[in-house]
Amino acid sequence: MLQARPLPAYLIQRFQGWKATTYQDNKAWYRRLAESGQHPRAMVISCCDSRVHVTSIFGADEGEFFIHRNVANLVPPYNPDGEYHGTSAAVEYAVTSLGVAHIVVLGHSNCGGVRGCHDMCSGHAPQLEEKSSFVGRWMDILRPGFHRVAHLPEDERPRALEKEAVLVSLENLMTFPFVSAAVEEERLTLHGLWTDTGAGGLEQYDPARNGFVLVG
Amino acid sequence: MLQARPLPAYLIQRFQGWKATTYQDNKAWYRRLAESGQHPRAMVISCCDSRVHVTSIFGADEGEFFIHRNVANLVPPYNPDGEYHGTSAAVEYAVTSLGVAHIVVLGHSNCGGVRGCHDMCSGHAPQLEEKSSFVGRWMDILRPGFHRVAHLPEDERPRALEKEAVLVSLENLMTFPFVSAAVEEERLTLHGLWTDTGAGGLEQYDPARNGFVLVG
Amino acid sequence: MLQARPLPAYLIQRFQGWKATTYQDNKAWYRRLAESGQHPRAMVISCCDSRVHVTSIFGADEGEFFIHRNVANLVPPYNPDGEYHGTSAAVEYAVTSLGVAHIVVLGHSNCGGVRGCHDMCSGHAPQLEEKSSFVGRWMDILRPGFHRVAHLPEDERPRALEKEAVLVSLENLMTFPFVSAAVEEERLTLHGLWTDTGAGGLEQYDPARNGFVLVG
Amino acid sequence: MLQARPLPAYLIQRFQGWKATTYQDNKAWYRRLAESGQHPRAMVISCCDSRVHVTSIFGADEGEFFIHRNVANLVPPYNPDGEYHGTSAAVEYAVTSLGVAHIVVLGHSNCGGVRGCHDMCSGHAPQLEEKSSFVGRWMDILRPGFHRVAHLPEDERPRALEKEAVLVSLENLMTFPFVSAAVEEERLTLHGLWTDTGAGGLEQYDPARNGFVLVG
Repeated sequence: MLQARPLPAYLIQRFQGWKATTYQDNKAWYRRLAESGQHPRAMVISCCDSRVHVTSIFGADEGEFFIHRNVANLVPPYNPDGEYHGTSAAVEYAVTSLGVAHIVVLGHSNCGGVRGCHDMCSGHAPQLEEKSSFVGRWMDILRPGFHRVAHLPEDERPRALEKEAVLVSLENLMTFPFVSAAVEEERLTLHGLWTDTGAGGLEQYDPARNGFVLVG
Repeated sequence: MLQARPLPAYLIQRFQGWKATTYQDNKAWYRRLAESGQHPRAMVISCCDSRVHVTSIFGADEGEFFIHRNVANLVPPYNPDGEYHGTSAAVEYAVTSLGVAHIVVLGHSNCGGVRGCHDMCSGHAPQLEEKSSFVGRWMDILRPGFHRVAHLPEDERPRALEKEAVLVSLENLMTFPFVSAAVEEERLTLHGLWTDTGAGGLEQYDPARNGFVLVG
Repeated sequence: MLQARPLPAYLIQRFQGWKATTYQDNKAWYRRLAESGQHPRAMVISCCDSRVHVTSIFGADEGEFFIHRNVANLVPPYNPDGEYHGTSAAVEYAVTSLGVAHIVVLGHSNCGGVRGCHDMCSGHAPQLEEKSSFVGRWMDILRPGFHRVAHLPEDERPRALEKEAVLVSLENLMTFPFVSAAVEEERLTLHGLWTDTGAGGLEQYDPARNGFVLVG
Repeated sequence: MLQARPLPAYLIQRFQGWKATTYQDNKAWYRRLAESGQHPRAMVISCCDSRVHVTSIFGADEGEFFIHRNVANLVPPYNPDGEYHGTSAAVEYAVTSLGVAHIVVLGHSNCGGVRGCHDMCSGHAPQLEEKSSFVGRWMDILRPGFHRVAHLPEDERPRALEKEAVLVSLENLMTFPFVSAAVEEERLTLHGLWTDTGAGGLEQYDPARNGFVLVG
């Protein structure tokens, strides 16, 4: 028998409150979205971290963003080997089925996944190096980024590596033929962002300066 | 050189508006979350679909939910083969590092990924059967669910399959040793939900009835 | 020998019902809260009045709010004289040990304590003026507020004084060095609310208008 | 100018949801409570701790319990010296104005205030011994309880002291003339409870055994 229990009552009450207010006020739009399908303008790839709410910081309504969230907002390189690739499936669906105009990769401060990668690559987290560590193997995607920040003072590295996570993902996105084709045909634009969740800051990657610049 | 362009101005404007209002009103909390770390009560696994906003329907503040979003809210079976497994990494991080008390799998109506799985398994989507289709291979996770709904009238199958996507994920979650151990030790509770985004309905899986029942 | 009697059976029955349902559904979370400690986002200072349930109106789960309740939701001025100060101890614990990000002072309609203060200050409640009246002496905290509403028509004064109780408490909170320091360092935000329990209304203090405005 | 900021939006949304559902469903009762006054059956004295929700564990509706919450659910001894005594004022109001039939003192596990008292009385928390420490001075109320548990093994003392906090409060309640009179005239009954928030247990003080016994 399946393991599953009833939802805690306070969540059901919150849902019922949402239904009686937000849903009622937007019912026509939600019904149209259900009937005519979603047409999101952008895909956002952000972290699972509970402190990162992309819909909040960008004031997004239902229907605007197709959102994939994984540990450390990473995109692995293109590898059509027939195995399960959740991130690649999300990117493929967004670009080829939904035709989104933007892909935004959103990194953030105090990222636990990035910190784990930093410690692993520094030799301080042997448990993450084990084959059975899903987090460790997932963070292998970011190893090329670690090599680019290894020369920095140790206290500056984690934050720099968070930004590398955005850049590695942007690089890897371009290894997908359907992404690079869409970018070249100007049907798709890529954006790299990093947010400081404590300070409420937002930086975006500027290729001309090859660095992140503050935008808000 | 990396492909990346500036963020559209309307998003920057929205962000600046958020910072002047929501951020200012919650600044102390966001700073504390940044400094003392996240302690989310639950992990939510939901779909990338732009119509599903779990933080909205459950009135969640930053810090409450650790959220993984992928196509069709699927969890693959446990398979520590050393490859990239984004979903497994997210589950591992939530359970072993953050110690979340709940994992909520949230399915939804009109799911494009589930529809693709339905069409593929019905023989109507040969392109999804190709080895190079990331969406097709990802939706292979749901094939056991398709066999359980194949006897239904064709127009009932997609919705039934959306609910099977929740059940398959709950089943697969229990194949992870750290998940099943935490459930057995009563440190973790699993919940299966399905929401009708157009009608604003919410159903939860009830093991006693082996089916979904309306809760809101 | 201590005076104490068994709990009425209906309360034991309700508790056992809660344990079989709400507790079971949240067991993992309650256990984690017990083991890793509370991390509430806010302190709420509200009245003992049986009609004011802050956890209900804000859909709060265990772990979200650190709640101090006294007669008329009052905070006395800072006075470290070595005597017992229950409210000051609660504020000190919330700010310096728990590091809450918000302190919400929640006043309410038909407050019996505020009514007593009104009558006492109007000369109609001599028994409250006696040294031995704990309620009278406690409501002395609100006397500065009475002077600010004394010019109003008599039937408007009690409600206005309920709102003054919120403002006096906000003022007094700032006399605590650890509160004013946290506010200045933007680690803590103060909020003044007043709820009409019969009408289900909620107003918040807006410094720009120097008055309360309806929010729900 | 007063320090006060707008309430975070997610709390306003939750309130509006509550108003559209719980309030609407109970409007008649809330209005009657507002117009004809509260008639609570019991006063509950519990801790500010975010993990203790007496209204939840006893399924209480608005109007049932007059609730005072302070650090460590303490009642100081009777001392009508004309100073501010928030707890004494709450007890006086409950017994002499509202005529409650029960006073329930509810202690709980993992109490930070009690832990502080334990450390202070053991000589390990000099900062709590300073005159300016509101928490330390407030916890002085519990010093007589510490002497009764000092003979126990150190790891058993905090829990035993949590239960002493209930007993000290019951003892101190009887020093209030209006409490002891009401108890002797059988207009008021006192109850001592202690709850294990992690295990969902409830114990009550049994004078016949001079100890706490499990009730749920």
